Amino acid sequence: MELKEDERIDDLLADQSMQIIQSPSVFAFSLDAVLLAHFANVPIKRGKIIDLCSGNGVIPLLLSQQSQVPITGVEIQDRLFDMANRSIQMNQLTDQIKMIHGDLKDMPALFGNDKFDLVTVNPPYFPTSSKKHHNHNDYLTIARHEVFCTLEEVVETCSKLAKSGGKVAMVHRPSRFIDIVTLFRTYKIEPKRIRFVYPKKDREANMLLIEGIRDGKSDVKMLPPLYAFTDEGEYTPELEGILYGRK
Amino acid sequence: MELKEDERIDDLLADQSMQIIQSPSVFAFSLDAVLLAHFANVPIKRGKIIDLCSGNGVIPLLLSQQSQVPITGVEIQDRLFDMANRSIQMNQLTDQIKMIHGDLKDMPALFGNDKFDLVTVNPPYFPTSSKKHHNHNDYLTIARHEVFCTLEEVVETCSKLAKSGGKVAMVHRPSRFIDIVTLFRTYKIEPKRIRFVYPKKDREANMLLIEGIRDGKSDVKMLPPLYAFTDEGEYTPELEGILYGRK
Repeated sequence: MELKEDERIDDLLADQSMQIIQSPSVFAFSLDAVLLAHFANVPIKRGKIIDLCSGNGVIPLLLSQQSQVPITGVEIQDRLFDMANRSIQMNQLTDQIKMIHGDLKDMPALFGNDKFDLVTVNPPYFPTSSKKHHNHNDYLTIARHEVFCTLEEVVETCSKLAKSGGKVAMVHRPSRFIDIVTLFRTYKIEPKRIRFVYPKKDREANMLLIEGIRDGKSDVKMLPPLYAFTDEGEYTPELEGILYGRK
Repeated sequence: MELKEDERIDDLLADQSMQIIQSPSVFAFSLDAVLLAHFANVPIKRGKIIDLCSGNGVIPLLLSQQSQVPITGVEIQDRLFDMANRSIQMNQLTDQIKMIHGDLKDMPALFGNDKFDLVTVNPPYFPTSSKKHHNHNDYLTIARHEVFCTLEEVVETCSKLAKSGGKVAMVHRPSRFIDIVTLFRTYKIEPKRIRFVYPKKDREANMLLIEGIRDGKSDVKMLPPLYAFTDEGEYTPELEGILYGRK
């Protein structure tokens, strides 16, 4: 597999069953993506999945290990789209995963509304209230800041793409939690399962996993917290299990 | 102190510093109220507090141990209002705590808007979609079901009573969480601190503590989870500390 500039091939899961191309200067997948892929309720044999803001394809790659259904990934940055495609080839998953190079906001027009059983998204976390970030259009800024899409545009797009009864799963920061649940409601995605990730005991949560159902009824479950590290700074057994790809 | 029918005097905190009148057939305070009183950010020396749906006065009594400011309790049920008043006398707190026998929805007209630094409420948890509960107007049904006030009426009233910058603290069930945060937003109470209570490890949350600020900015903190019981079924050290009145 051809590698460009400072790209390298990393293990995607600790069991070394999958590899992924990444680059410290362009994009490297985060724990957030791994936890979202583990958290989402995935259709196994029937249906279709779409992943928005796919970056280097980490979530489609991980979901393919749990599901036989077709998976579409969408990435707006040419360089990341290209990395994702090469990782899909490298893992021999071109039959199951298709990447689209485009803007997530154009996907409902491309696919039509109400098409997917699961929409996953690990969106940019940081609002860009100042113009500063808009002039900083490097890879990492676009992946992390709401340069090309706001949180509201992401949620609206997820809502359009999901079937009625289909699921939308997102990972984000807890500080945006209230924004997210109110936007979910506004766009008729009813939050059904929420899990907070805590770096360790007695600390505030630093990650939010949320799954809603398009046109679902109001009744949310707060799942047990997930702790990332022990007091000794080691992975907790639960996180280690996730990193080893155990469901 | 005069006791009526099956009333009894119970310790309010495990350190036996306060007592409260209750009755198994009418109203007995719950862990929920104790946790709310512990969770709320209480003005210590200046300001005013109002507690809605006060029942037998458990929250005003508990808050008086943390604060010197005047506390108003509001209870619609005559019998509970009477129990609360006798408990306040018994604990010699008549200078600090005043109970009002009335409907919480009438309080903004009585006090005016924007008057309180803290509004606390442990509202009825269960919606009454069927007419069944409306015919069941016994004490416990009214305390537990939305017979006299809906969740939206509670939130709207809290919003009116709180000053701009004042706090609203509520305890409720996690299943209503999304309803609560969307109603908070609708009535301009921005959720700022949220804590979920889990009965024990690896179980779903069964209680929600939430505090918002009237006209606050969007930025919520997810506090560490609170576990009630150990795997052995005993109080966790943290819950035990709360029940002993340690802040």
